[in-house]
Amino acid sequence: MNSYLTRLKEGSLKLYALDALVSPKEAVTIRRRYIEEETGVQMPHTGMVSIPLEDVVRKNCENMIGAVQVPLGVAGPVLMHGEYAKGSFFLPLATTEGALVASVNRGCSAISKAGGADVRIFADCMTRAPVFATRSVIHAREMVDWIADHKNEIADAAQQTTRHGKVTDIETYHAGTSVYVRLCFSTGDAMGMNMVTIASEKAAEVISLKTGARLISLSGNVCTDKKPAAINMILGRGRSVSAGVSLSEQQVMDIFKTDSKAMIEVSIRKNLVGSARAGSLGFNAHAANIIAAMFIACGQDPAHVVEGSLCITTIDPTDDGIYASVTLPALPVGTVGGGTRLGTQAECLSMLGVAGGGDPPGSHAKKLAEIVATGVLAGELSLIGAQAAQHLARAHQELGR
Amino acid sequence: MNSYLTRLKEGSLKLYALDALVSPKEAVTIRRRYIEEETGVQMPHTGMVSIPLEDVVRKNCENMIGAVQVPLGVAGPVLMHGEYAKGSFFLPLATTEGALVASVNRGCSAISKAGGADVRIFADCMTRAPVFATRSVIHAREMVDWIADHKNEIADAAQQTTRHGKVTDIETYHAGTSVYVRLCFSTGDAMGMNMVTIASEKAAEVISLKTGARLISLSGNVCTDKKPAAINMILGRGRSVSAGVSLSEQQVMDIFKTDSKAMIEVSIRKNLVGSARAGSLGFNAHAANIIAAMFIACGQDPAHVVEGSLCITTIDPTDDGIYASVTLPALPVGTVGGGTRLGTQAECLSMLGVAGGGDPPGSHAKKLAEIVATGVLAGELSLIGAQAAQHLARAHQELGR
Amino acid sequence: MNSYLTRLKEGSLKLYALDALVSPKEAVTIRRRYIEEETGVQMPHTGMVSIPLEDVVRKNCENMIGAVQVPLGVAGPVLMHGEYAKGSFFLPLATTEGALVASVNRGCSAISKAGGADVRIFADCMTRAPVFATRSVIHAREMVDWIADHKNEIADAAQQTTRHGKVTDIETYHAGTSVYVRLCFSTGDAMGMNMVTIASEKAAEVISLKTGARLISLSGNVCTDKKPAAINMILGRGRSVSAGVSLSEQQVMDIFKTDSKAMIEVSIRKNLVGSARAGSLGFNAHAANIIAAMFIACGQDPAHVVEGSLCITTIDPTDDGIYASVTLPALPVGTVGGGTRLGTQAECLSMLGVAGGGDPPGSHAKKLAEIVATGVLAGELSLIGAQAAQHLARAHQELGR
Amino acid sequence: MNSYLTRLKEGSLKLYALDALVSPKEAVTIRRRYIEEETGVQMPHTGMVSIPLEDVVRKNCENMIGAVQVPLGVAGPVLMHGEYAKGSFFLPLATTEGALVASVNRGCSAISKAGGADVRIFADCMTRAPVFATRSVIHAREMVDWIADHKNEIADAAQQTTRHGKVTDIETYHAGTSVYVRLCFSTGDAMGMNMVTIASEKAAEVISLKTGARLISLSGNVCTDKKPAAINMILGRGRSVSAGVSLSEQQVMDIFKTDSKAMIEVSIRKNLVGSARAGSLGFNAHAANIIAAMFIACGQDPAHVVEGSLCITTIDPTDDGIYASVTLPALPVGTVGGGTRLGTQAECLSMLGVAGGGDPPGSHAKKLAEIVATGVLAGELSLIGAQAAQHLARAHQELGR
Repeated sequence: MNSYLTRLKEGSLKLYALDALVSPKEAVTIRRRYIEEETGVQMPHTGMVSIPLEDVVRKNCENMIGAVQVPLGVAGPVLMHGEYAKGSFFLPLATTEGALVASVNRGCSAISKAGGADVRIFADCMTRAPVFATRSVIHAREMVDWIADHKNEIADAAQQTTRHGKVTDIETYHAGTSVYVRLCFSTGDAMGMNMVTIASEKAAEVISLKTGARLISLSGNVCTDKKPAAINMILGRGRSVSAGVSLSEQQVMDIFKTDSKAMIEVSIRKNLVGSARAGSLGFNAHAANIIAAMFIACGQDPAHVVEGSLCITTIDPTDDGIYASVTLPALPVGTVGGGTRLGTQAECLSMLGVAGGGDPPGSHAKKLAEIVATGVLAGELSLIGAQAAQHLARAHQELGR
Repeated sequence: MNSYLTRLKEGSLKLYALDALVSPKEAVTIRRRYIEEETGVQMPHTGMVSIPLEDVVRKNCENMIGAVQVPLGVAGPVLMHGEYAKGSFFLPLATTEGALVASVNRGCSAISKAGGADVRIFADCMTRAPVFATRSVIHAREMVDWIADHKNEIADAAQQTTRHGKVTDIETYHAGTSVYVRLCFSTGDAMGMNMVTIASEKAAEVISLKTGARLISLSGNVCTDKKPAAINMILGRGRSVSAGVSLSEQQVMDIFKTDSKAMIEVSIRKNLVGSARAGSLGFNAHAANIIAAMFIACGQDPAHVVEGSLCITTIDPTDDGIYASVTLPALPVGTVGGGTRLGTQAECLSMLGVAGGGDPPGSHAKKLAEIVATGVLAGELSLIGAQAAQHLARAHQELGR
Repeated sequence: MNSYLTRLKEGSLKLYALDALVSPKEAVTIRRRYIEEETGVQMPHTGMVSIPLEDVVRKNCENMIGAVQVPLGVAGPVLMHGEYAKGSFFLPLATTEGALVASVNRGCSAISKAGGADVRIFADCMTRAPVFATRSVIHAREMVDWIADHKNEIADAAQQTTRHGKVTDIETYHAGTSVYVRLCFSTGDAMGMNMVTIASEKAAEVISLKTGARLISLSGNVCTDKKPAAINMILGRGRSVSAGVSLSEQQVMDIFKTDSKAMIEVSIRKNLVGSARAGSLGFNAHAANIIAAMFIACGQDPAHVVEGSLCITTIDPTDDGIYASVTLPALPVGTVGGGTRLGTQAECLSMLGVAGGGDPPGSHAKKLAEIVATGVLAGELSLIGAQAAQHLARAHQELGR
Repeated sequence: MNSYLTRLKEGSLKLYALDALVSPKEAVTIRRRYIEEETGVQMPHTGMVSIPLEDVVRKNCENMIGAVQVPLGVAGPVLMHGEYAKGSFFLPLATTEGALVASVNRGCSAISKAGGADVRIFADCMTRAPVFATRSVIHAREMVDWIADHKNEIADAAQQTTRHGKVTDIETYHAGTSVYVRLCFSTGDAMGMNMVTIASEKAAEVISLKTGARLISLSGNVCTDKKPAAINMILGRGRSVSAGVSLSEQQVMDIFKTDSKAMIEVSIRKNLVGSARAGSLGFNAHAANIIAAMFIACGQDPAHVVEGSLCITTIDPTDDGIYASVTLPALPVGTVGGGTRLGTQAECLSMLGVAGGGDPPGSHAKKLAEIVATGVLAGELSLIGAQAAQHLARAHQELGR
């Protein structure tokens, strides 16, 4: 170990090169030791890694020095009536934000008391949109026409790279000489970003060859990945899912200590008019909180919280109470690939009965999407209820952050 | 332990009630055991928690059952010339996305070879915007006028709740009868959301009392917290920070195996025109990836990746190469409070020399903001460079996700 | 006349009731006299109406008292190579903004000298999106499924109301319990808003009857008509059209007294980065100016300038100069219906060879779209050229507004 | 005349050169004759110009060939209680859209019966934002700091160019190396775009000289002029104005043949949720229609309909009925300059009692803003009422477009 440390300090060995020389566990230890000596900071907690490292260092994280422990709480159980998620579930939430688990928990209780949440998936596609340069708007139009006439040929090229990915649509957008080809795929139980990137490269090669357009980037930002974008709000990305629940006036009063009218007023003045006034693409209270906590727990990509935050929350008046709903047009989730195989993350997915590939394929990922949506509904109900009762800040004070 | 388990199963004991009955460690164990039995899933990795629990269960996570381990890699060192962050830093990145650390690492190398990154903070304020209901647009105007005339009185009320928070501005926005009072605070080394929420409650009480407007919610979504919103892009939220670096043509060729012209073309057709075409509020390649990974490592709120994704990346031509920059108008970060005290997270902050409060106050949080911005610059340079060379998908394939 | 005036003043006769009692011309005169007496203002110019009134008072304007005269200038001729507009055209511009015609004129000259503009239409559909209320997200999903399975039935119902309108697509969007059915039509030479509104009513009746969803409004704002909306930018509305032109470095210098590099820098820092920074949906210099002036001249709906302003202008570097383009994703135009039959407006359309229905149907409206796009290209080139030479304000001063 | 025509045809005389050779009237006639001969189209109506030409050809329109006649209808009278507009007003609407005047008229009637509209101006500034290029983000920060420290010096430079314009704020925004200086002015009775452009040039010269930043364009699109932009929604541009009215349940039923609940449901599902779903910056039914018609009538710039369309319409429930409001954050209007002096336009302004400069300065423009806002309120109420009763399309059919 010391010889490696010496070589790292001398600069004759690169941090990443350790993987080729020693076992994953040793590599992690040596690197951490090196960082500790370079920065003068002891990192004992970071070194407490229990998850098996072989896969991780090859597939999930380069230059690994340990692991960050994110506290995991549970909310629920919450009753839901999805097409895939049926029954009661405890929700795993990895978070350091005090009051969040408690808040979601209260919402879960409300939903269960009200008879459970309605949940439905409305669309399911992962996208990648390479951008090409053409010579003129005439060339752009010719390219767009060629693509419209050769969708099968393009899809075939894309699909030869993947067993699970199927092209479901090929759309073109352009601006001047730039043409964006948005390829939509069903991706089974995978979130699918890598699958569709690799498939898109093949598609892009065909398009470029046949149209003479220059491929500029495999991602032209019309995908749109990890940036807040109206195209995701409008057309969806990943799983598009809604959850709703009907509460009677009595339930609103018993659980949230407020009334329908107050909750509706918060919903309108805050989530709808307030977001409009701020030029927002998210019309909700705090959907991102729940999505971030469940994504970290379940090995999802936390940068996809950006897409998830495009949530529209509504509270309709009913004859006796309210119908509350959340709509998540762009929720990229998967139960295979990414961080899903890691020890703790796999345990959280198992808790939900969705670890690994589903039978039929895609059913696990869709079930996970339905569960996350229900979690968001719980969080929204709880926070709007709390705000309706004007005690948000007091709740935070008492929970002591 | 078994008696508690029995009572949990019977429903005579609530999960959260355990905290009052047993030690934090026992409570976590009993709850996990209960969840294991309820779901039939063993969770040994989740149980491997080394971070001290006393604080965590009171301040960061209710109903805790263990911790999620997120792999931690390092990129760098990277040289930067901020006002607070001066010198070379290793960047901690908690991620399960293969290739991310490697990509940022390449960017760090490029920046250091180019002589280091310029980094500057342009603004610093955390916001909360309570929403009030007035009776008419005339009442709304009267309220807005009263606030304009009584800013000191409102600020005094807000500031009596906090030692570190200072009101820096009070802005009003309205839509019909809804009035949004956006309170801006400097928050020292705290990210400051809770501080400003509590302070805003006091301010809201004064405003409501004096103007007769009804307080509807302490957060009216004009803040805007954890939703993508143009107001954050335009006016900033948290720390507003930019990083830039000048690369010669030779450096572009040596490091990225491409040329200035190609990188500029990617930047324009993808980050600018592509994002415009998609109706996006983010004009960058993958800023959210780096922000998410550094936020999880450093105990920041991962839902704030939403604000962070409002990044504008530019690549200007220079006489001999390029000047690349990233601008993060809304980066909410802190080095005290939230998840910053937890074992692993505190170690990451220590690695950067920013654990706890700085001297003078605020200097640690600002230094962290400068470091994150430099990390984003590294990630952007690397990905744009890779895309310019048209090998994004191949890189991912080789790294084997 | 005096007796009518007396009755108007007494309130025993309504302004609009005059149409049933006297000739159109008399009605206009009596109303204007009444307004003159009520306000004490003489309106001799308003009374100078030469356009035939019979149609106008029934179809274009209620309570008519005269006409507003908007100065009409011409720019051009400008050479264009569209699929419909081929050759040189003078552009009619109705405006009161000094320097606008002169500016467009300079751009026309540049385009013609450069060999003419490339122009292509990329899409063509007018939309209407009724909004329905469902009982739950489950009901919403059932409704969406029913629509997907019965598109022909819905299209048949819609098309029975119109000879020229054809349903080209039926898309569904939802948020919670609200479902928006976006019906897309080809509308021949009509702009088509009324045609598709009437057709959508029939479609909505069928949908409501078969799904049990309540029709809330024939327009649910997902159309989106006369509001700036990303959905129009992304999916298009009306005619989607691009125009481009290639200028050599010498031409840039001779015509605009600047160089390619300067024009590209203005384009990027202003139209792309500036608009991004402002949270804009329009990435152009002043497309709305040209569209407004040509729309008023040609009897188009001037409120559609809103959609037209969603223009993306780009300036690419070429081997010897620039390729400039404008992309108008949402340009609602028609040559029949609306204000197209009125005397002066019909003369402007005739000037362009597009008065009335085309042969084949739709060819006149598409030709008009191509001409407007070329006009916008001329205006953009000229203003960007002027700004590149930093003399925008001086130009305005000299032209003396 | 014939000799000029001959020279025009030969190309030895330019169209615009006629102004220096003959009287305005002759120039218009010769040009129109030339266009008639070139296009083979007779334009007798276009030639019927009654408005005095001397000013027009120098200040409003180059290459003039005549005028377009836009039918002018009146709606009202409508009672309003503004700070400037007090009493009843007939609203001039220049339009070719059948049913529009009738619809606004019905809304005017509703407002008057309900006791009149509340109207208030909330802000008043016209903006121009030059964009500068700096060398680095450090240089950008230095420039921003310099501006913050020298606001008076910059304002003095700007104000030396104008008697009526006063600098009210100087804001800076940046993205990488691009810095946008948004100068805000009060502009008295002028809409003020030219005034502030000329003033901004002086300010820009000072800034450039003192900071070494290069001026790229006097308008950097952060203004934002004639493009839909969140910055205008959030910070306002021109006059920011709201109008509201309270209707009892009985009035809703009598006038609109519907009830409060139905109108509120339309407002929420269409104007709020529908616009959110479409990624819109406008949350209203058809504000642009009324603004376009009143702007053309009153000599305002019709391209500013873009800013005007950023309207938020709300309908609140009250104890007995509704409170309806419209908020126009960005309404650029003026009563001097632009098209305000022209014969017909001046007559429309006179009808409203706002022709020319007010006493005190600014009072005419503000009064006009209040009147337009009330017109928009009337239009919104009427259309929402009609949609609530599900008879939009039928109304259009009957009115026969």
